[in-house]
Order: sequence, then C-alpha cells, then structure tokens
Amino acid sequence: MSNTFGNLFRITTWGESHGDAIGVVVDGCPPLIPLSEEDIQLDLDRRKPGQSEISTQRKEDDKVIIESGVFEGKTLGTPIHLVVRNSDMKSKDYNHMKNLFRPSHADYTYQAKYGIRNWKGGGRASARETIGRVAGGAIAKKILKDHFGIEILSYVKQIYNIKADIIPEHVVKSDIDSNIVRCPDKEIAEKMIDHIKLIRKNGDSLGGIIEAIVRNVPAGLGEPVFGKIDAELARAMLSLPACKGFEIGSGFSSANMTGSEHNDEFYNDNGIIRTKTNNSGGVQGGISNGENIIIRAAFKPTATIMSSQKTVNDEGKPVEMQGRGRHDPCVLPRAVPLVDAMIALVLVDYALIQKTK
Amino acid sequence: MSNTFGNLFRITTWGESHGDAIGVVVDGCPPLIPLSEEDIQLDLDRRKPGQSEISTQRKEDDKVIIESGVFEGKTLGTPIHLVVRNSDMKSKDYNHMKNLFRPSHADYTYQAKYGIRNWKGGGRASARETIGRVAGGAIAKKILKDHFGIEILSYVKQIYNIKADIIPEHVVKSDIDSNIVRCPDKEIAEKMIDHIKLIRKNGDSLGGIIEAIVRNVPAGLGEPVFGKIDAELARAMLSLPACKGFEIGSGFSSANMTGSEHNDEFYNDNGIIRTKTNNSGGVQGGISNGENIIIRAAFKPTATIMSSQKTVNDEGKPVEMQGRGRHDPCVLPRAVPLVDAMIALVLVDYALIQKTK
Amino acid sequence: MSNTFGNLFRITTWGESHGDAIGVVVDGCPPLIPLSEEDIQLDLDRRKPGQSEISTQRKEDDKVIIESGVFEGKTLGTPIHLVVRNSDMKSKDYNHMKNLFRPSHADYTYQAKYGIRNWKGGGRASARETIGRVAGGAIAKKILKDHFGIEILSYVKQIYNIKADIIPEHVVKSDIDSNIVRCPDKEIAEKMIDHIKLIRKNGDSLGGIIEAIVRNVPAGLGEPVFGKIDAELARAMLSLPACKGFEIGSGFSSANMTGSEHNDEFYNDNGIIRTKTNNSGGVQGGISNGENIIIRAAFKPTATIMSSQKTVNDEGKPVEMQGRGRHDPCVLPRAVPLVDAMIALVLVDYALIQKTK
Amino acid sequence: MSNTFGNLFRITTWGESHGDAIGVVVDGCPPLIPLSEEDIQLDLDRRKPGQSEISTQRKEDDKVIIESGVFEGKTLGTPIHLVVRNSDMKSKDYNHMKNLFRPSHADYTYQAKYGIRNWKGGGRASARETIGRVAGGAIAKKILKDHFGIEILSYVKQIYNIKADIIPEHVVKSDIDSNIVRCPDKEIAEKMIDHIKLIRKNGDSLGGIIEAIVRNVPAGLGEPVFGKIDAELARAMLSLPACKGFEIGSGFSSANMTGSEHNDEFYNDNGIIRTKTNNSGGVQGGISNGENIIIRAAFKPTATIMSSQKTVNDEGKPVEMQGRGRHDPCVLPRAVPLVDAMIALVLVDYALIQKTK
Repeated sequence: MSNTFGNLFRITTWGESHGDAIGVVVDGCPPLIPLSEEDIQLDLDRRKPGQSEISTQRKEDDKVIIESGVFEGKTLGTPIHLVVRNSDMKSKDYNHMKNLFRPSHADYTYQAKYGIRNWKGGGRASARETIGRVAGGAIAKKILKDHFGIEILSYVKQIYNIKADIIPEHVVKSDIDSNIVRCPDKEIAEKMIDHIKLIRKNGDSLGGIIEAIVRNVPAGLGEPVFGKIDAELARAMLSLPACKGFEIGSGFSSANMTGSEHNDEFYNDNGIIRTKTNNSGGVQGGISNGENIIIRAAFKPTATIMSSQKTVNDEGKPVEMQGRGRHDPCVLPRAVPLVDAMIALVLVDYALIQKTK
Repeated sequence: MSNTFGNLFRITTWGESHGDAIGVVVDGCPPLIPLSEEDIQLDLDRRKPGQSEISTQRKEDDKVIIESGVFEGKTLGTPIHLVVRNSDMKSKDYNHMKNLFRPSHADYTYQAKYGIRNWKGGGRASARETIGRVAGGAIAKKILKDHFGIEILSYVKQIYNIKADIIPEHVVKSDIDSNIVRCPDKEIAEKMIDHIKLIRKNGDSLGGIIEAIVRNVPAGLGEPVFGKIDAELARAMLSLPACKGFEIGSGFSSANMTGSEHNDEFYNDNGIIRTKTNNSGGVQGGISNGENIIIRAAFKPTATIMSSQKTVNDEGKPVEMQGRGRHDPCVLPRAVPLVDAMIALVLVDYALIQKTK
Repeated sequence: MSNTFGNLFRITTWGESHGDAIGVVVDGCPPLIPLSEEDIQLDLDRRKPGQSEISTQRKEDDKVIIESGVFEGKTLGTPIHLVVRNSDMKSKDYNHMKNLFRPSHADYTYQAKYGIRNWKGGGRASARETIGRVAGGAIAKKILKDHFGIEILSYVKQIYNIKADIIPEHVVKSDIDSNIVRCPDKEIAEKMIDHIKLIRKNGDSLGGIIEAIVRNVPAGLGEPVFGKIDAELARAMLSLPACKGFEIGSGFSSANMTGSEHNDEFYNDNGIIRTKTNNSGGVQGGISNGENIIIRAAFKPTATIMSSQKTVNDEGKPVEMQGRGRHDPCVLPRAVPLVDAMIALVLVDYALIQKTK
Repeated sequence: MSNTFGNLFRITTWGESHGDAIGVVVDGCPPLIPLSEEDIQLDLDRRKPGQSEISTQRKEDDKVIIESGVFEGKTLGTPIHLVVRNSDMKSKDYNHMKNLFRPSHADYTYQAKYGIRNWKGGGRASARETIGRVAGGAIAKKILKDHFGIEILSYVKQIYNIKADIIPEHVVKSDIDSNIVRCPDKEIAEKMIDHIKLIRKNGDSLGGIIEAIVRNVPAGLGEPVFGKIDAELARAMLSLPACKGFEIGSGFSSANMTGSEHNDEFYNDNGIIRTKTNNSGGVQGGISNGENIIIRAAFKPTATIMSSQKTVNDEGKPVEMQGRGRHDPCVLPRAVPLVDAMIALVLVDYALIQKTK
C-alpha cells in the first residue's frame, strides 16, 4: 500500500517536489526486456513542465537515469531504480507558503495527518511525485506493446465546457500529439488552447476530462472479485492528483438507460466472439472481454491560481493569500502520459498474472 | 488481491450463487468488540432478495452464522468466519443457460479466463457474492461507529432519468428506509417505485446512481500516494457488480469549473479548521480533511431482462435467448447496504492504520 | 499477513479448537484442476487425532467438505472453501484452565495481546488450527505433483535422543507410512515408538526433528532478495506450533566448516548442470538449483503434560496445576503431513510466479 | 514480496554490487522521527568492507545520503530514499567470471531463473545488496529504541569450531565492539581472530553462528498464525546471504528434551508475569511474552575462496577456476549489524501494528 503500486509488477515511488530528486523502484519486471533511458525519456518529456506555452514554466529537464536492474541493455529481473534530479528548486519561492494552508491543496491534510509537512512547493503532494509513475509506466507500456501487442492511447476529451467530438476507435497517436493540448479533434483543440491562454492571463485554471482507449487487450484479464480490472483502473485514476471521477464504457450515462438499451449483444466475428456495442467498455464481470477498454477520468481545475484567496494559517487565523510566481492553468495536457502510465501499470500486472492460469 | 479486500482489516469472501453457501473470513478485526449475529443480520436483511415488491422474488432468508472469532459475545482478535447457507438453489432453472453467453453478463469472460464456469445462475459473478461483503462490512461499520463516531449513509439518488433533489447534509437514516427504493426524497421515491414497477412489467431493467455521505470522519485518514482514500473508495465501488462510474465531491462537474470557482476556502469554525464549500468531497491530496465525505456511484441496468435477445453459444453459434423466471428490475435499493459496507471496509482500514502514526 | 499465507496461491484459515468448525479459503488456485474431497481427506487422516496408540485420543473424524470453488469435479479458479466440523467439543474439560496460564502454552501471550482469549482447549493457538493448512496444502501438493512433477516427503528423523540413520535420497513414501511414528528407519522407529509409549505413561512429552526432501524441483524457483525460497520455507516451518528451529542443507553444521569443504562442485550430468555434493540443500542465492531441497525442523516437546506444574493465574497469583484428560506425548508423527503441506504451499507459489517470467 | 520487506514499515531495496549505487526506499516510517545521515552511517560503518584486517579489503566508503522523506531533520511520513554510491567498481576484476558458474554462488541459479545475470561481482546476489537493509534497519532500530525502549544486540557466538561462552543476558554493546570479530567473549575472540587470519592466508573461509538478544520487548507483539514473530524472524535470517539455519530459545536442543524439562514456569515478579527459564526464547504461540527474545543464525563459510576449484561454464563444459583478488575469509563480523537490522525491521512492524489493537 501507500507508495507501492502493483502486485507482480510493482513500482515504489519516492521524492518531494523540492528535494534532491524523484525516483522509482520497479520490482518484478521480467528479465531480458531491452531497455534504455531513451525508452523512458520519451514519456517523461510529454509530462515535463515548460514543454509548451500552455503549461507551467517551471524549468526542469527531467532527465532520467537508470541506476540498477539493467545490464548490457537488458533487464535483469532485479529491481530497476530510475531517478530524475530536481534542478529548479527555489526555496525562496515558497517561504510565503510556510505557515498557511492553500485552499484545495493538501497542505492542511498533510499537516493534520503527519504533524509536519514539506511546505516547499507541495512536497510529496506535488504533481512532481508522478514522475516516478510515468517512468515506471513507460516500462510497463513497453512490455504490453512488445509482448502482448496492447496499445494505450489517452487524450484530452474536454477542457472546461469545450468538448471534443471523438470516436475513440478512430484515434491515432499522431493526432494526439499534433497539438499542445493533446486533443485529437484538431478544431476543438484550437479552442481549448485559446481558452487556456485566456484563463492563464486571468490567473485562473481549468478542469477537464481525459479519455483513454486500450486496444488489443486479450479476453481474460482481471481478477474478480476485488481485483476487477475496472476497479483497479478506477483506483489508478483516482490516485492521480486532481482526479475527481472515473467511468468505464457507458459510465454515468448508464444510469439513464434500460437493460434492453444497455446490453451488448454478442456475435461471432470470424471465429472471435465480439460485442456489437461496447457499453461495457471492454470489461464484463471485472474481466476484459477482448473489446477496446474505454475509460474517462475527470480532473478538477488546478488549485494554484494567481488571484487573492481567503484561507487560514497554521494557527487557525484568517489570512489572505496572493498567488505568485508560475502556475499551471491546466494540467490535462501533461496528465495525458500519466494516464497512459497508470493504465499500463494496471494492465501489465493482469497480463503477467494471467500467465499463471 | 483477488478475493481479499483490505490491509489491516481484511475480508476474504468465497461462494457461488448456487453452491452450498456464501461466506467471508474477517481477519484483523480488533479484539473485544461486542458482536452478535443480529448486528450483521440487520444489514443482510436490507440486501436480501424478495424484501419488497420491486426486487427479485428469489427466496432466500440469508441468515448469518458466526462460526469463529467470537467468544462470549466479543471478538477474539482471531479470524471471524461468517456463513450464509443458500436455500433457493434450483439448478433446473439454469439448464437453458449452460451453453450460451448471456449479453452483458460475465459468462463469456469467466469462460475466456478460466476455461470453465459455474453456469448455474452466474456462479461467482452473481450478486450473491456480495453477501460476504455486507456481512464483513457490518463489523467494519460497527467499529467505525462505536470507536470513531463515523456514520455512513448511502441512498438512491437517481433511477433512470428520475433524479432526487437531496442535500446530503440533511439526510437521516430513517428517511432512507422510509420507502422501498431507499431514496430520502419521498416524492421522487414514489415516482421511482412506479417506474420500476412499470419496467418490471415490461421485463426490462433500470440503472441509476447511489450517493453516500460519511460524517464525523477525522482529518488525516488516507495513505498517499497510492493508498489515497478516494482511490480506494473508487476501487471499492467499481468492484461492485454493475458499477460503471465513481465520483467524489464535485466529481465530473469539476471538469466544467475554474479554479477560482472550485477551490474550497478554509475558515476557523470555533477552533476547527473547516472549508466553506465542499467540492473536495472531504478529501484533499488523498487524505480526509474532516468535512463530510460525499461520493456517487453509477450502476448500469441489470443485464437480466425478460425480452428475447440475440447472442452466441459456447461454440460461437448465433442463438436467440428468451428471459425467463425471476428478474431484478433494479438492483439499486438492495445495493444501498452494499455501498455502505464497502465504504466501511475502506474507512476502517484507514482508521486503524492512522493509530500507528 | 496474519491468517493468510501465500501470494498467488493463498490460504486464509479460520477457527478455534472448540468452536463450531475449522476452515480455510484457498484463493488463487488455477482452474480446471480435478479435485474431490478424497484428495484432501487423505492428508487430513494422516494429521487427525486418535489415529494410533501414540497420539492423543481426542476423537475427531476431521471429515472435510468442499463448499465452493469446485464444479463438476474441477476447480473453477474461484475461492475454494473447505470446512471440517469439530465434533469432540467438551467445554467442561477445560473449565479448570479458564483462569490460569499453562506453562509454555500461548494462554498468557494471547491474553496479553488481545485482552481476551478462548480458554477452551487453546482456542486459535491449538494445533487444530493446522487443519486448514493441511487441507489447503493438499491442493498445493496435487498441483505440484500433477503439473510440475514435484514430490514432497517429510518424515520423523529424531525423537528425543533417538536419531534415525536416513539417507534422504533413498526415502520412499511407503517407508514413511510403514510405521505409526512415520520414521523410514524401521528399526529406529520401533525404539521411538517404545519411548513415546513409556513417556506417555509418565505423563510427559517428547520433542524431535522432522526432515523433508523435495524432489524434481526445477532450477529457478525463488524470488530474491526477500522472497528467497529458503527464507519462505523457514517462515513456513516456524509458523507451525512447537517449531523452534529450521535448517536447510548443511544447516547449523555449516558453521563448523571451511569454504573448501562446503562448496558444492558443479558438473555436467548428461546435459543437466548438477552439484556433486548438496550442502546447499537445493537452494543457492535463494533460488532452487535443481537438486533436491532438504530441510529440517526442530519441534519442542508438547507443552501439555500430566504432572503437576507451578504457574500463575490471570490475577498473577501462584497456582499449582495438575494435568488431566488426554495429552499428546509427541506431536511429530501427526506433524509430518503438516510439514508436507507447508512446503507445498511455499513451492506452489514460486512455481506459479515463475510462469510469469 | 521479492525486494520489499515489511507490512506497515516497509523497505524496498535496489542495486547490484557493480552498478552505480545501492539504495533503499523506506515507506511507512512514522512522521516526526529525528533523523540524520549520521544515525544511519554508524551502522553502515560496522558493515562496510575493509574495516579491519579480518574482512575483505575491497575499498568502499559506503557513505549514505538521504534523498527524500526528511525535512528540517525530521521524518515527514513520506518515503525515505537512502542511497550509497559504489566507488570500488573494477569490472576488469570480474571478466574471468563472465562465463562460468562459481561453486556455491548464485551465478547458476540466477542464470537459470532469469536467463541473464550481471556477472560482475555477484550482481544482485552480492552481499552489497544488504546495504539497503542495514540503512533501513537503522531507522527501525531508532524507532524501537526511542519509542519502545527495545534494544537489539547481535554478536558472534561461534566461528568454525571455536565457541564462545556467553550468557546473553549479560552482554553489553561495548563488549561486542571491543574486538574486530564482534564476540563479547574477549578471550575466545582472540582465538577466532587468529583462526580467521590463518584461514585467510590459506585462501579458505569459515562459517559460524551469530546470536542475538532483544531486550525490553513488550508482551503482545506478533500476529498469529502466519505472522508469528518467530516465523518472521526466521524468514528475515534466512533471507540473509549465506544463512543456512535459524533457531529461537531452546532451538534444535529442544528436540532432545521432555516437556517437563522444557516448559517455562510462570511466576509473578513484582506485578509482572515472567518465566523462570526462557526455553521459549521470549515467544509463545508466535507472540512475545515479555522475556528477552533470543535467536541464533548459522552462516556457511563464504563461497569465494582462493584455491583452485572445479566447476562448469555456461556451456556446461568442465573448467577449473582459480580464486584471485580479494576475498572475505569470514563474513560474520560484518554480518552482525545486518542481523541487528533484520531483527529491527521485523519488530518495528509488529510494534506499529500492535498500536492498532
């Protein structure tokens, strides 16, 4: 529990936003997987700050180093340690936060739980914590792709009230990365980008929805009744900073449906049993049915905003705080590789365990 | 994983819908908790079939027996085994299902995963599996109430397109149980009941949304970054049969908001630090902040319907299946105590682990 | 932890010696394993009380019932619940024990830990708890034998100061069960039996050593650095009631050796890499090397004796207690199937996980 | 499992002997523990190579760096990452080992398991792996000492056939560190040192026994039936490189005893219930009884010796290998802090979990 995720393929992450470094131990990775720092860097670059005009301007290279578990370009089956050094640590930036609880941040809850917190930039509750997940997830993605042919594609579906019109089955990776907001609907992407720029000027922030499609999932992954694949995906998504909701397939819209509308009819597609509709989102009874897995995760707007806000300090006295420095008006474009990573971490575990049956 | 849930307070459930019995081992329960079968039966009675005219008419008493772990009316700290005998087992009812895959059931995925399935009434994928959860959850609820003062109230918020107008903070238990659909909005409850009756006549089924409020949660529960309390609640809900979505606090509506709208302002309420709004749903950074925890879970309509449906059999040949026997037009009223139970199982673990800090 | 053992193949045991029943949930068992109650009963019969003139005369049939997880004679991949009803429950036998702490029993420690204990016959600390292990282990043994060809043979090596002269490699199962003390050295077995009979008359008890050999273990089982196969075997043995020591291969005698004496020379045996000696006991670096695994476990004499003993009661007052009723002068013959079971539970986990590499 | 040890207080270790570094993530450490690098360095210095004339002359400073989880001198409750850089990496030293399997090393088993191994100096199977354990254990020891008053003292009891005459209850820390072999019996220590020097000249190596006493353990630690404290201690010891046996209290000598000799009589010692003898070794029914915990671990002689040995290469061909470079004639003096660390890791988990009862 706590800072370890997974059963057979496990990541254990460590690091605070303003400490020396952020890292992850990947344990249980099968041996003989070709692995280089480049394989991992690609995903970290999609997550790193300062990558476009609509993300935070914090300057971090986020260069990953493999410190163990790989020998002559291949995994050994022993723990793989990946580390990213923090470079843009400016403690002075944060002295004004030392004694107050920023609204909708985790300052207060960490203080309430532990009686202490690293008040420099969010500490462990900072989104920098997710570097370890993306790094570990990159290895998981590679195994899924190379050994099982599974492809995971996450993308921005909605920013604020701007909703893209996307048929998940049609999405290709190049469309996602064709624009800085990572929305495959290029027209809507422009509107999203414009609105993020506008809101950044206002010093405010925006929420949105990320959707993901997972292709080529074999039927049979998932471990009911508590290790259902949809349950673990929900847990994985809600473990992400700012995530407030999860759905699979028909999701919340299923509430408004009748059984005769919702049921997915089985048919025989040249020897493969498939469903005509996919309200199930690729999972039935907690086990993959071979259809695409389709999920959505809702993200609240970033808590850090530039306008003045009322709050209390650590003595319980009312104070007014003024945002300053850099802020990230919308985390969703950078969260896309993170959603990919978490899905990969969930699936690789199920794919490995299914080999034991 | 798989059939065990929890870390310090763990349940391990067993049993198929048409086997001899359904049971649960509760391990890690603190000693000296007064416990009788009545404590558990109360919740099982709210879950059992045939309890009202809008639920399935399967006849089961669902009487629980405590077989270990309790001595002279108190828990021993040793594993508690609870068992409920199946009585309404009619295998003949199910012979027509032996060779076909019912749409949106788990018949196909269990067969694909395990190469075998108990085709009598859903086997392990039947909702009867949840008896063990409700029984174990009843103990968790008792500990939370007696030792921590925590109260959990789940209720039906929406059936099909009929939405109740409920202020969670105002809900009391007696309102929930004042009607058979378990919706505290009594007027809307009538409409829901009428619509369920109508749809039952049509042989169809309905989905909906269950909402829950948890009161008196101390600040500090939750174990980031992977044991966040909202992440475990999401996992718990999605592990339930028919659940397709989860949200906490502002949930999916947070996607449409700006940071300045969404942020929950802190204030000092006579020495207690509280928030003026509760978009966070009682959880910040994966840790409870002392406000009410408010979550919602979406349930798809029951897959079993009485109309004719196309599907394939286990040889992949197209067949037409006709619903027969009894069906449950809407599982939500009976799922209410189940949602209570899963929330309790999540929280009791966090409450116990927080004692170690 | 606590009452669950294993990772992929997990048993969760429940039950006190004088409760209704003793049971075990086996979770993670692969599907499609042929399984009947007879498969399990065989091992339970070797463990049950009253089976010979040198064991306790408590009368228990220990008949096992499979209550879930098996369908039409085959495992489903879902949890298997096995239960054995207690029949020889005579609470009156134990009223004299209610308020005192029997020397070298767990009465005092359970009371100190939990503040309560089931004082009827040892409760959870009774050797009856091990029924669940033997039952679950029987399934593990079957998988190991049928799917991997692995054979586990445990036997009594020493009772008190009577030591058998056994070459593990020569032991066959029929030799073990050729006598009631389960020692394959038939001459020494007679001496052991005679001494146990003598000590029983004296109302005293005896310790001893059980040795086990595991054959046909493939090279490669074990998960360093904390899941080393020898480490898990040690844990498994020390989790048994009355076990005070564990060794593998050269064990404690290795302390007296030099490296040049101890090292096992590798050679090529018709294409298979083997070692000329087996001081390693079949495990190197925590991983099986393909040689026979050979371990020993030391058991202290049973704490229940018939002579008068000084102790204190639960108010700390000195009391003198007199043994009465039935006692087991030497548990080792009945512990033999238990050692088999625990070894099987350890190995099946490693065999399954190795399939994921 | 695998590279993580512990439940509530968990260490996850990583690193190979000739990689960049060795590290450990400590997760679940309570907050507000004062912690500096010095606290940890002290134990690492007792373990490091080259510390005396009887240990290996490999040159490593083994300087630890805290990279996360500590803020302003106190633990945050977040994961603590500790790293030690490898400095004495001379790959050329090991080229001769690339293609052969050293007798009684883990070269062959790692190759058999993973199909690949880091052949430079033992890789993950090197004793350098234990740095992470000692570092993590140092924190555990600190918590046990400061919060529970528990003291752990390990020392060398026997080297080869030279046995010290030690009454565990009389041992003090300064006696242990008064000589380089870490044996509190100073006369015998001299003999041990002389014999190690002699055997080093011969290019051979020696085994031995480490004994440990743990004082001030409160009654009630341990989680039966599978989390028995003696079972976890056994697992912890056998997880150590070169450990071949474990015993607690009377250990293997209990096999030769009768119940009337072995039973520990309870008495009231000024309000505290104690036992007159301690054959139980401080643990009854898997739970501490408040007496000193006394254990012993047997270590085989180091596999690396300087004489010529027959073995096979990775093509199965017979080869003769000649030892060269540096070797460690006896690991026991350096293993003493490691035994301390593993005991501490086991106990801290139980001490924390007991707070939840």
